[in-house]
Amino acid sequence: MKAIGRHIILEMWGCQNLESVQTAEQALREMVDALDVNLLDLHVYPFSPVGVTGMAIVSESHLAIHTWPEHGYAAVDIFTCGAPRDPQDAVDVLRRHYAPERVGAMEINRGQLDLPQHEVSSERTREHRPRSRPRAPALSA
Amino acid sequence: MKAIGRHIILEMWGCQNLESVQTAEQALREMVDALDVNLLDLHVYPFSPVGVTGMAIVSESHLAIHTWPEHGYAAVDIFTCGAPRDPQDAVDVLRRHYAPERVGAMEINRGQLDLPQHEVSSERTREHRPRSRPRAPALSA
Repeated sequence: MKAIGRHIILEMWGCQNLESVQTAEQALREMVDALDVNLLDLHVYPFSPVGVTGMAIVSESHLAIHTWPEHGYAAVDIFTCGAPRDPQDAVDVLRRHYAPERVGAMEINRGQLDLPQHEVSSERTREHRPRSRPRAPALSA
Repeated sequence: MKAIGRHIILEMWGCQNLESVQTAEQALREMVDALDVNLLDLHVYPFSPVGVTGMAIVSESHLAIHTWPEHGYAAVDIFTCGAPRDPQDAVDVLRRHYAPERVGAMEINRGQLDLPQHEVSSERTREHRPRSRPRAPALSA
């Protein structure tokens, strides 16, 4: 099956360090390294009273961590197109930083190119080329 | 089924305006309004040679748009916890801005609280409270 992107959805329960901005930032940076993707932007947002959102925008799409310490839970998304490495390496990074007791994982093909109703064209050869860096500064809110 | 968050995954094919930074930004802003969620940060990143990534971080999680104009395709994620409105309103915003010929949609419960192995505690009553604004400035890359 040929797809534009891979989206790994992780449900992590019984986690540690869910309150830590530093853990989220470090985990995202190490996931970027593990996946060998190109980091464009990284932000971590702590919430009151509890919880953290971390987001890494990469040329190949995005990595997101949302934590709910009150449930011992973190929702993680690893969405990449053309990443050269096995996403399992990024999961290992998360296991090291959050020490989850249980991890549920699901992989979704995003942009499925070979479904019957989709016309397969010569453009298929472009699908695994990572997109390059932005051509202009990002717009801000 | 009780869950911490709802994650709507949209596959949009045959789209227009996939190259436009302005369309991505405007769509995200209108989705935020349609969902009645709290916008923390919004960035749109154009790619060379083609494509746009737009990301809205909201107190309730995130909204993401990634476009591949060469395939007429956009991947959209609407991940919210405690959003008061029907996500269909946000899908309507996307239909207006991108005029997709086909839309595939899937909803995933994130942080399922009532699975048999998960201990249901009094904390369940907290799950629909949106998280409030950050208590500190976001860290940047």
